[in-house]
Amino acid sequence: MENVIRMAHGAGGRMMNDLIRDVFASSLDNAYLRQMADSTVIELTDLPLADLQLALSTDSFTVSPLFFPGGDIGSLAIHGTVNDVAMSGARPLWLTAGFILEEGLEMDVLERVVCSMSEAARNSGVQVVAGDTKVVERGHGDGVYINTAGVGILREGVEIGPSRARPGDRVLISGALGDHGIAVLSKREGLTFETELLSDSAPLNGLVDVLLAAAPHTRCLRDATRGGLAAALNELAVASDVGVEIEEEAAPVRPAVAAACEMLGFDPLTVANEGKLVAFVPPEEAEVALEAMQSHPLGRGAAHIGLVTEEHAGMLLARTSIGGRRVVDMPLGELLPRIC
Amino acid sequence: MENVIRMAHGAGGRMMNDLIRDVFASSLDNAYLRQMADSTVIELTDLPLADLQLALSTDSFTVSPLFFPGGDIGSLAIHGTVNDVAMSGARPLWLTAGFILEEGLEMDVLERVVCSMSEAARNSGVQVVAGDTKVVERGHGDGVYINTAGVGILREGVEIGPSRARPGDRVLISGALGDHGIAVLSKREGLTFETELLSDSAPLNGLVDVLLAAAPHTRCLRDATRGGLAAALNELAVASDVGVEIEEEAAPVRPAVAAACEMLGFDPLTVANEGKLVAFVPPEEAEVALEAMQSHPLGRGAAHIGLVTEEHAGMLLARTSIGGRRVVDMPLGELLPRIC
Repeated sequence: MENVIRMAHGAGGRMMNDLIRDVFASSLDNAYLRQMADSTVIELTDLPLADLQLALSTDSFTVSPLFFPGGDIGSLAIHGTVNDVAMSGARPLWLTAGFILEEGLEMDVLERVVCSMSEAARNSGVQVVAGDTKVVERGHGDGVYINTAGVGILREGVEIGPSRARPGDRVLISGALGDHGIAVLSKREGLTFETELLSDSAPLNGLVDVLLAAAPHTRCLRDATRGGLAAALNELAVASDVGVEIEEEAAPVRPAVAAACEMLGFDPLTVANEGKLVAFVPPEEAEVALEAMQSHPLGRGAAHIGLVTEEHAGMLLARTSIGGRRVVDMPLGELLPRIC
Repeated sequence: MENVIRMAHGAGGRMMNDLIRDVFASSLDNAYLRQMADSTVIELTDLPLADLQLALSTDSFTVSPLFFPGGDIGSLAIHGTVNDVAMSGARPLWLTAGFILEEGLEMDVLERVVCSMSEAARNSGVQVVAGDTKVVERGHGDGVYINTAGVGILREGVEIGPSRARPGDRVLISGALGDHGIAVLSKREGLTFETELLSDSAPLNGLVDVLLAAAPHTRCLRDATRGGLAAALNELAVASDVGVEIEEEAAPVRPAVAAACEMLGFDPLTVANEGKLVAFVPPEEAEVALEAMQSHPLGRGAAHIGLVTEEHAGMLLARTSIGGRRVVDMPLGELLPRIC
């Protein structure tokens, strides 16, 4: 009998329980998952309860291919939700994982994905505390889709949100742009580069810890995923009703990404990242914020790329190397499908 | 231009933002969703914080067809997660929703699904506080898949869990078995019955409120979804290392469901429900628990169907009308795929 996923693996019976035990629980094992209940009970008594605030997020992952240079759908599903929770200034602690498996998926592919999730969760300091598995017929999925939802606890005193930007804030980016999008695309389309290009998929909660310790008045954080930096900055400009102005040359881009974008007609500002954040920081904390980021392995390439303005509210402007200014629109969206 | 989902609706740009605004936010609108942040911040300060415990759960919904007698994937996605959270004795409060849409899905189908979610959330007393949308190419999905994750707050003093059953506990079921599974199957296979059969999809948190007020020492709660009552009782028997013995005749089954099961060779004990719970209650509270359930609209058909035994630990036995006893195994799983 082929060792593949069958419809019965999603049907709530013995085969599903065996799959949960042999594949999911064996990799992701922790005291919460071992409750094996309809929902998992978490005690908050060890945490400081004054003014307790939760951060909640959800993200579904449908990346194609499942494995790409520098990552896979499993680690991506952990990093993506860890990062979403971290961007509110919260410490991500617990994740749930929902799997939609396609009939015929090879069991060892699933095992590799789950092992990768497990390692990514450990490296991110979070636990997968609840899960669910469904199976759809061959041709109604694409191997594995994963949803992760995340719960974090907000730091006391930190006030971060998309509408908190103020004119004069400095715009910092944690590193080079576009690695994830171009790495996934290169694998999908069989492109090769002189130097191997890896996805930047990584958990940003540690970088946020370091950044907020140095710059506790940080106003906005956003990871520049789908739609790239252009989408993240446009969204923050609209939410805060301010203008954002960046130096196009100041935004770091690796030569391989720049070359691929040149060849394919992409703007690196609109290509997805999975391990880069943009921070809006008040001017008096900008210098220490940048140094703090650069001291962290995931922020070594951090750069100061622009500032928040009162003028042209709701818009992103880029100053070009020849001294001009262009409006960088919210991308329409069709650039790179199935990137996360 | 056709009013359908296109790949660009999932690509993080303007079209995705328009979709979120026009379809999701307009139906599901609340102060949390309006934060439009990477994760949603929730204040717990209004809640009693002593010994605070959270309940977390996740469930993906891939039911086919999307609309069935008595419900649809939208309301089901709310009820399923509300029920999972309620089964730990917690009050479900906040849900996240992750959508995987198939390219070509008609926009009005999506709108109907989201409206149904919105109504179900209102009726269940929960809010959808965070969301995500992905789009996959035509042929890699099935219209809409939805993941919901749920967060609830545990009641103080209630101790409910799958391993807490004790010999002598009474086994109560909240109503007739198998309505959901047979309703979905009938729609899918074009079966018709003399009387219309509707899914029992419903939020059980209100019923749990009433039950726990009357029987605060309730030991186990489980909703009998995939795998039906047989799976739920087998799982509880294993988790608590006890035997469970039920009177086969005492388990209520509607005539139409009984007839369909007879015709198709199904055991009603293994058919899915989406609005029925099983409760293990200590003998001294069994009577008041049953009365309390029967006083609630979703528990009118509640019945006492059996008890927990020290013998045959880990097994479910059914006493038949002619006086015999049979072992009811955990179903293998292939009975009814894509039922939720």
